[in-house]
Amino acid sequence: MQIDDIDSPSVLIDLDVMERNLRRWQAHCDAAGIVNRPHIKTHKIPELAGLQLSLGAKGITCQKLGEAEVMADAGIDDILITFNLLGAAKLARAVALARRIRLSVVCDNDVVADGLSAAFAAAGLRLDVLVELDTGAGRNGMQTPAETVAFIERLSNRPGIRFAGLMTYPPKGDAPRARAFLAETVALLRAKGLDPAVVSSGGTPDMWQASRDGGITEYRVGTYIYNDRLTMAAGAAKLEDCALTVLATVVSRPTEGRAILDCGSKSLAADPLGPGLGHGHIREYPDAVIVKLNEEHATVDVSACAAKPAVGERVRIIPNHACVVSNLHDLVYGLRGAEVEKQFPIAARGLTR
Amino acid sequence: MQIDDIDSPSVLIDLDVMERNLRRWQAHCDAAGIVNRPHIKTHKIPELAGLQLSLGAKGITCQKLGEAEVMADAGIDDILITFNLLGAAKLARAVALARRIRLSVVCDNDVVADGLSAAFAAAGLRLDVLVELDTGAGRNGMQTPAETVAFIERLSNRPGIRFAGLMTYPPKGDAPRARAFLAETVALLRAKGLDPAVVSSGGTPDMWQASRDGGITEYRVGTYIYNDRLTMAAGAAKLEDCALTVLATVVSRPTEGRAILDCGSKSLAADPLGPGLGHGHIREYPDAVIVKLNEEHATVDVSACAAKPAVGERVRIIPNHACVVSNLHDLVYGLRGAEVEKQFPIAARGLTR
Repeated sequence: MQIDDIDSPSVLIDLDVMERNLRRWQAHCDAAGIVNRPHIKTHKIPELAGLQLSLGAKGITCQKLGEAEVMADAGIDDILITFNLLGAAKLARAVALARRIRLSVVCDNDVVADGLSAAFAAAGLRLDVLVELDTGAGRNGMQTPAETVAFIERLSNRPGIRFAGLMTYPPKGDAPRARAFLAETVALLRAKGLDPAVVSSGGTPDMWQASRDGGITEYRVGTYIYNDRLTMAAGAAKLEDCALTVLATVVSRPTEGRAILDCGSKSLAADPLGPGLGHGHIREYPDAVIVKLNEEHATVDVSACAAKPAVGERVRIIPNHACVVSNLHDLVYGLRGAEVEKQFPIAARGLTR
Repeated sequence: MQIDDIDSPSVLIDLDVMERNLRRWQAHCDAAGIVNRPHIKTHKIPELAGLQLSLGAKGITCQKLGEAEVMADAGIDDILITFNLLGAAKLARAVALARRIRLSVVCDNDVVADGLSAAFAAAGLRLDVLVELDTGAGRNGMQTPAETVAFIERLSNRPGIRFAGLMTYPPKGDAPRARAFLAETVALLRAKGLDPAVVSSGGTPDMWQASRDGGITEYRVGTYIYNDRLTMAAGAAKLEDCALTVLATVVSRPTEGRAILDCGSKSLAADPLGPGLGHGHIREYPDAVIVKLNEEHATVDVSACAAKPAVGERVRIIPNHACVVSNLHDLVYGLRGAEVEKQFPIAARGLTR
């Protein structure tokens, strides 16, 4: 099967580029002396998680139990879930998962800690729990090093769970702030004899600066496998590092300056890049701007293009955000040049729980 | 099964509200003397399409062949696809579909018309084709009544296809402009003996003004089955008309003014409503604002709420845009009060082709 045999819209992966991305990041982690624990949310494909592990990753990161269950079913046995787990249904699933793989989770409050403790103590297990810090991203997490230490002191006395370390998703472009928060927390914990075994940071924008500074022992990054316009905007990748494209067809040219593609927000996702920057980079028409997405239509301003696309022409688009594209499709086509080497079902697509 | 037995995040449908929405719109169409051809993109569920038909709809609208195939498999036999079909793969599927149901499609250019004509003539069939007009929405379609008439004159002479009428997706809030464009085109066509059998308009914002003005014979509307914040913002629905909610759990309260829910853009979708208006209406906390969505996290500003939600509490959220929510989930729970009456698989989810 060749690329010309694929109908649009479809998601294509350039396997050469993808493999280069994986190797380059693993080499960075190895040189920096940090553990690579890639986040599978970008691809949601067990076989690609297996490739990441075979190249040197120690384990993987999932955001939801459902994703972790799919990955465990495929034989992956070291998974960190970076999300607070709450409620009887999820706790029962977490216990079942911990019986078959090395599971660790995060936590940032007593309600979640109490639930984990009760469920795992009742099962006769001890679960590794990392405490989440809000080092500036403004999402989940402890607000100060002092608050963190007090929480960990309470956590350490609970049955069924074991304090395993610290975890943060740092603010984009402000890694020094995150490192200072981590370093201060680590120092306070050590003074109390509560040395964190793992200090896990992450995030694509500052990935190439990742090091052991701040006491960091491992790093989680997802988008690096494919890269996208957001990764490029952060300076973490170049155009030639983008492995994922959406194949689309020009279906209408209603005016001289307007083209309509058959890939709307159902194919490209609507995550914005910034005002005026549009919804994707059309490789064949770099001066075109995807000004609007409906669910099935992309409206493209082609007025700045010297040559303009014709109805029926096919193009390849680098999306703003690759991870959300993976969640919309049931499979991707893995290309070696123009040849389809393999089709990968996106087995962990749409697992919201 | 009760609502309390459903884990979060999940999509809930209040069946009483949904049925009232369907009946009210059908009554409007009946009183106005226009055909109701609902767009199934909002629910993507064959059984709900069947309910729309049983209440009086003449047929349904789909945006993609894949959606139409799923609906035809469920026994629905009158489908309009409002999208230009191009390429050998899609033309073969369209021919196969037309052999088993009453299919009609739209078209706005000669390349698409040539393809349809060749494929259907070769199959010994004649396909009903509606010509799409851009009456101001700035997407697909003919730009002027004169251009439309010239195109239809060319279209009418092609084998394998039959000119069946006009179709437009009018500009939001400017239905008079669309009606004037339609009326002028109808008059020009009649003068040439090319009377359009169908004049199809659509769109939720102006649905309650839909009438035969402008020569309109049928109306396509999707969101009315569920309604959402965009429908409310357009004045086409009230809070009590919103049948779809996303069930979510408060998983973190990192600060006094911040709550984190377990439903991010993977559950609620990221379609914006407008600056400062957030990503959904939390029914239990109407003063809360969902200020940011990551894939799995919703960050909520609860500082304006008198009583604030606790970790573990569950809430129900009316999304900005219901259609895109349906595309993210594999099933919805149909509720009669607090009782789950039925689970509906979203059979036409994710069908981009």
